[in-house]
Amino acid sequence: MPNPTAAMLVIGDEILSGRTRDSNLHHLAGRLTAHGIDLREARIVGDDHDAIVEAVRALSKAHDHVFTSGGIGPTHDDITADAVADAFGAAIDVREDARALLMAFFEARGVEATPERLRMARIPEGARLIENPVSAAPGFTLGNVHVMAGVPKVFEAMLDSLLETIAGGRPRLSQTFRVERPEGEIAAPLADLAARYPELSIGSYPFHDNGVYGANIVVRGFDGAQVNAAMVELGRLFPEAKA
Amino acid sequence: MPNPTAAMLVIGDEILSGRTRDSNLHHLAGRLTAHGIDLREARIVGDDHDAIVEAVRALSKAHDHVFTSGGIGPTHDDITADAVADAFGAAIDVREDARALLMAFFEARGVEATPERLRMARIPEGARLIENPVSAAPGFTLGNVHVMAGVPKVFEAMLDSLLETIAGGRPRLSQTFRVERPEGEIAAPLADLAARYPELSIGSYPFHDNGVYGANIVVRGFDGAQVNAAMVELGRLFPEAKA
Repeated sequence: MPNPTAAMLVIGDEILSGRTRDSNLHHLAGRLTAHGIDLREARIVGDDHDAIVEAVRALSKAHDHVFTSGGIGPTHDDITADAVADAFGAAIDVREDARALLMAFFEARGVEATPERLRMARIPEGARLIENPVSAAPGFTLGNVHVMAGVPKVFEAMLDSLLETIAGGRPRLSQTFRVERPEGEIAAPLADLAARYPELSIGSYPFHDNGVYGANIVVRGFDGAQVNAAMVELGRLFPEAKA
Repeated sequence: MPNPTAAMLVIGDEILSGRTRDSNLHHLAGRLTAHGIDLREARIVGDDHDAIVEAVRALSKAHDHVFTSGGIGPTHDDITADAVADAFGAAIDVREDARALLMAFFEARGVEATPERLRMARIPEGARLIENPVSAAPGFTLGNVHVMAGVPKVFEAMLDSLLETIAGGRPRLSQTFRVERPEGEIAAPLADLAARYPELSIGSYPFHDNGVYGANIVVRGFDGAQVNAAMVELGRLFPEAKA
């Protein structure tokens, strides 16, 4: 059975304006690879209702899972929950279970439960809550879309909770072989190797460090024996290199 | 006249597997903001012909400019140039002007012009070359799609050349106001401020550093006087904070 597929949707003007560097995609990519879920694409859109709705619909149709980050706080620019509800035609309002989680957190800290804070308990009808052990305000899963916070510490904690509930597949194994020759020189033997191992994905990532031209050759696949066999061949092709 | 709009397409399995952290999006975002081009969305796809073709077509229809990074080297997994040509129904082959650039570079360095290296001179019919002052192999512009390398040093150098040839708009101004209060407390006055300045975009980006909960409030807009006026109001609303 092939692995489940996934897409990520990063939401936030601050990424597209260059103010903030997203780190959630990189974190999610590594976690999904280890969990045996194939991350096939990612999209980044601004804090724009229609853009979020459109992206959620397209990605949720095309993939088994969609993971979103950003836009679920208490301020006026946090519009993700409403947009995801709209994408599925679901009603959305403050929900009692989410409200109870927030109230317990606020009371323990002597914080006032303002209407703005309670916006974070707006959860679409039919959604399942995602636990937030950092700051209580939950994420949620609606259909195959998992809605999480943008603050990396919270995103990562929510993802921990969530992945325990999602069936993974076979983790893809990966090994890297570093060659200190320019890519132009290794391209032909590498293409030949890739053709002989059609089930592996063999990528070449050039670098240029301190005057040295080279490439990291990454061999990825599900079958450890095949990955190892390809690594052995790389060692024969480029005997000067170290794996 | 509104600013031109743009999208970015990042191409590479290594980003989606979590092996590599993309940095070109963040760089492009900052440069476009300064140049007066509105980056509206970004997509990341793997080294997959059909996925690249589909994304190029969708983004090039929806935006004035599309900037791509990745997949234009000499190895078998570098398939971007062919996919972009396909997206536009353009023929592609080694082109004489690109070949001449590469040959001059190879000859100066005593490097052999192998068929694999000359793959980097494959340029779609009708495309305009983008200069690569780092390693000679050019990028290209086909229609409204600007195809550049994935190696950050090369991507950034190509973008420098390219932006000189693209008309920008009004740069969007941005100021940041740091408030050391939790977002739930500032949300109501902030929503009110945003409603009174409909031409500005006012975003709130929460942080949690060493036990301090707060938010960076980012005010963005084209009119410097308006941005300043909103910053003055923020100073009145949150007098304890420092801009």
